[in-house]
Amino acid sequence: MSVRYPNGKKFSPNRSFSTTNNVKKDERFSNRGMTLEEDINETNEYYRAHNIAVIHKKPTPLQIVNVHYPKRSAAVVTEAYFKKPSTTDYNGVYKGRYIDFEAKETKNKTSFPLKNFHDHQINHMKQVLAHDGISFTLLRFTLFDEVFLVFAKDLFSYVDNQDKKRKSIPKKDIEQFGTLITLGLHPRIDYLKIIDKMI
Amino acid sequence: MSVRYPNGKKFSPNRSFSTTNNVKKDERFSNRGMTLEEDINETNEYYRAHNIAVIHKKPTPLQIVNVHYPKRSAAVVTEAYFKKPSTTDYNGVYKGRYIDFEAKETKNKTSFPLKNFHDHQINHMKQVLAHDGISFTLLRFTLFDEVFLVFAKDLFSYVDNQDKKRKSIPKKDIEQFGTLITLGLHPRIDYLKIIDKMI
Repeated sequence: MSVRYPNGKKFSPNRSFSTTNNVKKDERFSNRGMTLEEDINETNEYYRAHNIAVIHKKPTPLQIVNVHYPKRSAAVVTEAYFKKPSTTDYNGVYKGRYIDFEAKETKNKTSFPLKNFHDHQINHMKQVLAHDGISFTLLRFTLFDEVFLVFAKDLFSYVDNQDKKRKSIPKKDIEQFGTLITLGLHPRIDYLKIIDKMI
Repeated sequence: MSVRYPNGKKFSPNRSFSTTNNVKKDERFSNRGMTLEEDINETNEYYRAHNIAVIHKKPTPLQIVNVHYPKRSAAVVTEAYFKKPSTTDYNGVYKGRYIDFEAKETKNKTSFPLKNFHDHQINHMKQVLAHDGISFTLLRFTLFDEVFLVFAKDLFSYVDNQDKKRKSIPKKDIEQFGTLITLGLHPRIDYLKIIDKMI
């Protein structure tokens, strides 16, 4: 039996992003070996450093059960469990507007599995839209090194129908209603360029 | 020697807010015994439930060092450390605008200590303002059960000068440039009422 965690994958400690210059990339700006999260963190750092936007990843939500307070050194959490996030992972402000998004990746070739989206994340996206925030997802097809920006409203029709028919979104649909993001070196995933066209 | 943690206090597990009706309050709506965080969480839940705004507290940032993956049960974090938050604790969207704030409380009677604010939190507030977000703090004087909304811009002059002269903001100053929030039963700290006057 395989164990499923809330985010659907095993924990791996974040690499430090304090210096991004020493990250080697080949000439085609391939993201091979970098996770989507790492690329987005780098992008958000770029946006902050260049005064473009203030967008952060939220910390991983943990249910803390036990904390040890040793004398003369820092408190240690000795027992905690991963919780399902009640919101999307990224949010912040861009030109006064509220920006909110979730990032997911798949190794599938022809479709994006909908099980990647939790109900409460979808509900959160709907709430954000209802309050005039900008809600979207970044979907990466890892094998093609392609990242699409898909606005939340385009996602809902698939998600809301998933019990009835769909367990995934065909890639050809995503190519149609989503926008392929040209990957770069710095920033790596310049998603705000697409947001610019709608605000 | 007392041990200081990033948030300046010992860890206490959150109470559940799934049902707020069983929380007993006396007739004067005193918040005695409830932490500021609990009151704000209840308020944000109220805002979400009544479709007023979507504002959440960010999870406590932890540096995860060790995770144990037992067979047939959930992953357990067995070693993690509290990190200094790089942003404020609360953010979200209200009427399309980006809302961002920090909440602090003190047992002092005549002034609010500035050591409560970390440099990176102040920097974050400045960035939010620069991008036309709405940035403020909620300051509670616990002994008087008074909560003031203080806009970030009013805080900066004190914080920026603290090395030179001030280690705290006099309460009488806060009473002047801040706004006292009338505490209620549901929501408990209706801070958006004050934001309404400025947007």
